[in-house]
Amino acid sequence: MTLKFVGSESPLPIQGVRLASAAAGIRHPGRDDLALVELSRTTESAAVFTQNRFCAAPVIVARENVANAQPRLLIFNAGNANAGTGAKGVVDARTITAEIARLTHCTQSEVLPFSTGVIGQRLECSEIIPVLPELVAGLSCDGWQAAARAMMTTDTVPKYCSIEVKIEDLTYRVTGMVKGSGMIHPNMATMLAFIACNADISRTHLQQILVECVARSFNRITVDGDTSTNDACVLSATKATSNGTPLTPHHSHWPAVVEAIGTIFETLAKSIVRDGEGATKFVEVVVDSGSESDSLAIATAIAQSPLVKTALFASDPNWGRILAAIGRAPVAGMEITDVSIWLNDYQIIVKGEPVDDYKEPIAAAVMAQTDIVVRVLLGEGGAVARIWTCDLSYEYVRINAEYRA
Amino acid sequence: MTLKFVGSESPLPIQGVRLASAAAGIRHPGRDDLALVELSRTTESAAVFTQNRFCAAPVIVARENVANAQPRLLIFNAGNANAGTGAKGVVDARTITAEIARLTHCTQSEVLPFSTGVIGQRLECSEIIPVLPELVAGLSCDGWQAAARAMMTTDTVPKYCSIEVKIEDLTYRVTGMVKGSGMIHPNMATMLAFIACNADISRTHLQQILVECVARSFNRITVDGDTSTNDACVLSATKATSNGTPLTPHHSHWPAVVEAIGTIFETLAKSIVRDGEGATKFVEVVVDSGSESDSLAIATAIAQSPLVKTALFASDPNWGRILAAIGRAPVAGMEITDVSIWLNDYQIIVKGEPVDDYKEPIAAAVMAQTDIVVRVLLGEGGAVARIWTCDLSYEYVRINAEYRA
Repeated sequence: MTLKFVGSESPLPIQGVRLASAAAGIRHPGRDDLALVELSRTTESAAVFTQNRFCAAPVIVARENVANAQPRLLIFNAGNANAGTGAKGVVDARTITAEIARLTHCTQSEVLPFSTGVIGQRLECSEIIPVLPELVAGLSCDGWQAAARAMMTTDTVPKYCSIEVKIEDLTYRVTGMVKGSGMIHPNMATMLAFIACNADISRTHLQQILVECVARSFNRITVDGDTSTNDACVLSATKATSNGTPLTPHHSHWPAVVEAIGTIFETLAKSIVRDGEGATKFVEVVVDSGSESDSLAIATAIAQSPLVKTALFASDPNWGRILAAIGRAPVAGMEITDVSIWLNDYQIIVKGEPVDDYKEPIAAAVMAQTDIVVRVLLGEGGAVARIWTCDLSYEYVRINAEYRA
Repeated sequence: MTLKFVGSESPLPIQGVRLASAAAGIRHPGRDDLALVELSRTTESAAVFTQNRFCAAPVIVARENVANAQPRLLIFNAGNANAGTGAKGVVDARTITAEIARLTHCTQSEVLPFSTGVIGQRLECSEIIPVLPELVAGLSCDGWQAAARAMMTTDTVPKYCSIEVKIEDLTYRVTGMVKGSGMIHPNMATMLAFIACNADISRTHLQQILVECVARSFNRITVDGDTSTNDACVLSATKATSNGTPLTPHHSHWPAVVEAIGTIFETLAKSIVRDGEGATKFVEVVVDSGSESDSLAIATAIAQSPLVKTALFASDPNWGRILAAIGRAPVAGMEITDVSIWLNDYQIIVKGEPVDDYKEPIAAAVMAQTDIVVRVLLGEGGAVARIWTCDLSYEYVRINAEYRA
């Protein structure tokens, strides 16, 4: 088995997936703000959506459609979230999907809409509809990079990656793209992700892989702790590569392919954090306690603490803030004397107190790096959870306070 | 019945309570950083402490002592939280209380210690012990203002208030002081509060009043959503004023006195938010839904959202962020079409969408005020909850990133 990971280079095309992008004037004049994805007839797809009780119109329509058909076309727009737009917003989303269905000879249920951008403004169908024929005509297997760019809102870079795994005579490929600059920024951005592979996987198995991968990637990142009205993630399998037997957990290729898909999810999730609003540092919080749910609760409390995040911004090895965050995590029976903490490889806390030869300049030097691992061991450990986050900077306040100025 | 509220003027003395302050060099040279409170022999007291699992040494000692005796002396220090200091920190706290007990001829259990300030450094008993005789000698019923000032860390103003209620021939008084500049700032500040009244109330009833008042005051404010290692709140009743019958829920004076105590708690809590780190605005979030717990969950989600808080800072009537925060509150069966929102008296959202004649300049003018009420009605309403918060500004990041620079 050989494995090749593609990060910032051109994403690898996936046979059965064609993409196009175009400018409809929703976001900024002259910049692409629409992306269309076409999936071959053999493709099966799975999808997950935001847990926010107030979901946007495209989420309502996409949920309905994916329940009724295999998706053939995905339409993404940036600049307008079509959220808080009530019944009219649902009509707008359906108007666009209906027109795409007409142009591509599909049923309306085979078209899924995704929107990201400002909340509470109607999506101008009259601007989008005329651009759709150009989009359909422009579909190309090399369209990934442009499509990833068209999805951007406050994102500073397009985010995509690919992986290729060769097993026996088969070459499996996974390529994904994502937009998002935080867990939620409901007036400017939300998370949208599309990942495709060429493997032969059924919809049922894809849904299972998707849920597990999302739990360990997009659900493990936090920029500001909110959750969005528009989040959506689609995983597709085009079945272009197969040895005649669909991949199931019993297939010998299953572990490698599932791991490759997981790698793409994790890489895309981390790329969101690196591009987090105002982020100057990428931070991995790793907690090892007696149970994975406890570890996750502690990691989340640390990663979401504004005081820990401002300390990270300031390169301040402020372990009191980390201890206090751990202490408020909803974990029973925790004692401060059970807690040890490392910044990267430098241990700062042993059993709740600074190590005997603690040198603040060393800890401060670690904190000054742009990639930091905060590692917590509770008791004997035994179950690890990871969360990725970024620091809280002036720039976060500026972006979110002045974005309309 | 007549009622007089004293805000920024001098706090009213409480018969049976004497206070003193002094400088021990813990915080800044030459500034008072120690406050001592002496309670008369008739005084009964109740106390509540932080819910953080990692509580500071003084909290451990105060909890122990208050379980064993009626407090006679409370010693507060600013500049050092005596937290994350392990067994040595407990010894330090006990060393100080033992010395105060010796000087005042009390038992050690009758002395409660309270600390606030930097985490993880030993409290220098050798600096504090020599100052204690001066503190004891300086006790005065007029010492409230100086004591409130001595408790300050990042607080920009001393915070205290009084209320006086005359019923028949009795004059009930309640005076309180508090320090805190946010829910938690474990390296710089934490919340400490002391409230005394001259009424005749048993410890059992005081504890009941305290728990209810804290639930509706200090537990209803958020600056940054964290909880502290050092939070403590003591409510004392000196019994100097009585018509011979202790106040119980059956006493005709009970409602007025309990309401007066509640007013002091609420006023002190709001004063913390107004003095919140970097705060430029005071924000009341009022939610009216079918149940008080739902209302509280929704109000908390709004008040803790960094996106709502940056919008408040920017005077941006960004209702999409408010809707998204409501949508992620853990409340079952909520529909966006149930939601109406007002900024002060200006309604912006009706049933999940902007009101028909919504004028953003009017909403922006409301948001530009320094006191803002965000009011949410869910469905028919029926149970109200209130949370007080402030905006998230550059100054919050600066204070918490650069405090040691």
